[in-house]
Amino acid sequence: MKANSMNPRPRKQAKALERVSAEIFSPAEHIQSHFARLASIGVQPDGSISRIAWTDAESTAIAYVRSEGEAFGLVGRYDPIGNLILSTPGEQQKRVLVGSHMDSVPHGGNFDGAAGIVAGLEAIRPLVGECEKFQAGIDLVVWRGEEHTYNAVYKGSATAFGSSETHILHNVYGGKTLREAISGQGFDPSCIDEARPSFTPEYVDSIVGYLELHIEQGVQLERERIDLGIVTSIAGDRRFMVVLEGRFDHSGATPMGTKFRSDSNLALGYIITRLDELAKRHRDDGRVFTQTVGIVNSDPEIDRKHPVVHSNSVTKVSGMAYFTLDIMSSDDAFMDDYSAEVLRTIWRTAKEFGVKAVVEQTDSAFGLRELDTGLSDRLAGAADKLGFANKRIPSGAGHDSVVVGLAERPSGGRIPVGMLFVPCRDGISHAPEEFTTPEQVAKGSEVLREVLRDVALAGGCA
Amino acid sequence: MKANSMNPRPRKQAKALERVSAEIFSPAEHIQSHFARLASIGVQPDGSISRIAWTDAESTAIAYVRSEGEAFGLVGRYDPIGNLILSTPGEQQKRVLVGSHMDSVPHGGNFDGAAGIVAGLEAIRPLVGECEKFQAGIDLVVWRGEEHTYNAVYKGSATAFGSSETHILHNVYGGKTLREAISGQGFDPSCIDEARPSFTPEYVDSIVGYLELHIEQGVQLERERIDLGIVTSIAGDRRFMVVLEGRFDHSGATPMGTKFRSDSNLALGYIITRLDELAKRHRDDGRVFTQTVGIVNSDPEIDRKHPVVHSNSVTKVSGMAYFTLDIMSSDDAFMDDYSAEVLRTIWRTAKEFGVKAVVEQTDSAFGLRELDTGLSDRLAGAADKLGFANKRIPSGAGHDSVVVGLAERPSGGRIPVGMLFVPCRDGISHAPEEFTTPEQVAKGSEVLREVLRDVALAGGCA
Repeated sequence: MKANSMNPRPRKQAKALERVSAEIFSPAEHIQSHFARLASIGVQPDGSISRIAWTDAESTAIAYVRSEGEAFGLVGRYDPIGNLILSTPGEQQKRVLVGSHMDSVPHGGNFDGAAGIVAGLEAIRPLVGECEKFQAGIDLVVWRGEEHTYNAVYKGSATAFGSSETHILHNVYGGKTLREAISGQGFDPSCIDEARPSFTPEYVDSIVGYLELHIEQGVQLERERIDLGIVTSIAGDRRFMVVLEGRFDHSGATPMGTKFRSDSNLALGYIITRLDELAKRHRDDGRVFTQTVGIVNSDPEIDRKHPVVHSNSVTKVSGMAYFTLDIMSSDDAFMDDYSAEVLRTIWRTAKEFGVKAVVEQTDSAFGLRELDTGLSDRLAGAADKLGFANKRIPSGAGHDSVVVGLAERPSGGRIPVGMLFVPCRDGISHAPEEFTTPEQVAKGSEVLREVLRDVALAGGCA
Repeated sequence: MKANSMNPRPRKQAKALERVSAEIFSPAEHIQSHFARLASIGVQPDGSISRIAWTDAESTAIAYVRSEGEAFGLVGRYDPIGNLILSTPGEQQKRVLVGSHMDSVPHGGNFDGAAGIVAGLEAIRPLVGECEKFQAGIDLVVWRGEEHTYNAVYKGSATAFGSSETHILHNVYGGKTLREAISGQGFDPSCIDEARPSFTPEYVDSIVGYLELHIEQGVQLERERIDLGIVTSIAGDRRFMVVLEGRFDHSGATPMGTKFRSDSNLALGYIITRLDELAKRHRDDGRVFTQTVGIVNSDPEIDRKHPVVHSNSVTKVSGMAYFTLDIMSSDDAFMDDYSAEVLRTIWRTAKEFGVKAVVEQTDSAFGLRELDTGLSDRLAGAADKLGFANKRIPSGAGHDSVVVGLAERPSGGRIPVGMLFVPCRDGISHAPEEFTTPEQVAKGSEVLREVLRDVALAGGCA
């Protein structure tokens, strides 16, 4: 029974059935069925999706992709940290990669990350029959932990290329350290401990290119009725956690004014306002970036570290507040200069209100100022050939592509990276309302397929 | 054993021992021992005190006061809602009251309310021997639930005089409705249901005056090295809960600006800033009031009603935020006009940021513009006689005295009310650092004793 249930049909029969299925169902229908299945993995009572890094939900979704890919002939394996690699059969030493991440933010949607995986899967399906002609095999890679849980992004891809920082293993989410979460899913955190890539040097050297499809998470494509965005640059980030320590006092008996009050919530209000005014000045100077105060006093994880935030009450001057600040831009030098101005604004304003500001930088991820022009041209060319409207577009969000694009090959040089955006409804992402259609993803998948085939046949991007 | 442990000594022997104890220990020493005992009732792991309305902690503290008072000859009884009345023995139909409340804010201190109770208790102790000469008996009244838990203040005193609003029984704190909490402590919420005073009409008619001592909860007395404040007016309040509903979006992919974002936290920051600027303008016009944003997104009770606040994350534009606003002044007409301006500012600012503001008025308590001049003069006179520095001072905080002072006697007229403040360290209240010395409270207690004796002997305040 056990062997049967793991492999219910003899391989040849399965292959024959899958071929029929590939012929009967369109890519969009396959994609629709994947989204339908994934929508039940990590779903929360409010309809949102929480497929957090190294949880059962993330592992279950990845296992689903593995079983789907293996059913039509791909060969699956996990790297030591749990990234999935699904390879076309064959002995090619060169590999062209397509992939994205399977995790979500807490209470996010079903498409961020997952869209790129199902697009890649369906891009490869019709290529399996051709793969004997390829100079480079095709690998679908499913990254773990791209989102900012455990106070770190790109955790799976960064570990693959040895750029994860050891300290992140101590970071906590949902009551677990990242180390415990990784071990809990049956994988081995020691490569992070030892700052060792979870991909072998030979494998990294074999990668001739990397493609990633992602939902835009913005409104440009939708507003301009464009099918596909060819990504020109990807934003990095600087993230901060700021704790404001004031003094609790009676709200009625303590006169107003900084002579009497050290009011954390009041300092918070002025800091948010002044940071917004600071950002406006730089945007007026033509800088392209975003600045977001995402969390104010409302994160159960942070509350556990700072339970005194619950001592705030209707009839007290606020003695403690905290907020997170997210700055994103593809211009790393600007982000560093701007962050310094931000910190000065925070400290100066806090001081003015008699409040102590404790600032911790929780994340600093590089951006990618330029994606590979050759791959970008191929993506645009394939879209044109297929009749899909497309335009060049910068990415305001970060993606695993940055990590792949910045990785140094052991034998020297970098991996060419190309990225495709598909529109998503109202630009909403990181929320249960996140949505894109199977047809839109299928268009992206077709473009990926064209470029994957070309690169696989040529054995490289040049 | 049971009877013994409840009443370990024959009454006469107890009285004799207590008399000795009253002679051996000074009022300050008695007061110190009361604070030491109360400090263990409702104490939290962080050293703060949570004696919430109608909890075991509040009931235990009140039972302690009852047993202490009965040990030196007072006669205790609870009204139907659980307010304690400890009476000097005797048949006098007229009563002069001294009292305060026993509950605390969540994570508050040991002195707010309790100081007035122990001061009253020790004021009465030496008078028990004289009470046969009194025209009016003396009652120590220990109010329940004065603090703003269950979204309502003065719950015990207001119920005593029939001014509690029925709907407050549905309000929830710590997972319980107020109705459940009252019943859970063995008392009967039906008088609130039926808008019926828990004090009998005869008892209310018998009250010839009410005195209350309280910690100042401000810094005036301490800064000017003054022993006692004679309270001239008491602030009322207008309290609001504001929910800001925006839209969750990806922090990096959603451009800044109100054209793209409906950012709740950003609207929150500007609202806090603009309300502070509004308050400044009115203070510059000479208005005396306080305005406090006490809670921002950090109340476990409110979180249960609005769990979506936990969907905020570092990498999302904020889709939801909330805050409480507390306005206090002894000028009710000003508070009403000012509140209207506040709401306009909130709605206008929210709209500017594409955010919906839902405002609920959670409390509206009258202030007392003037306390009884006769009682105030007696308090000042007694302080002068005893050599304690004193000054007239308005109360920025609300107190049960307001309820007593506004109550209508069934036979017509109002109850004269006088209030004393004692300094508290750094003006800090509603916090674990709240502190005053037994010596300071003893000075207030001595003044209370002088005035109580005078009024009791005369059988009235006139």
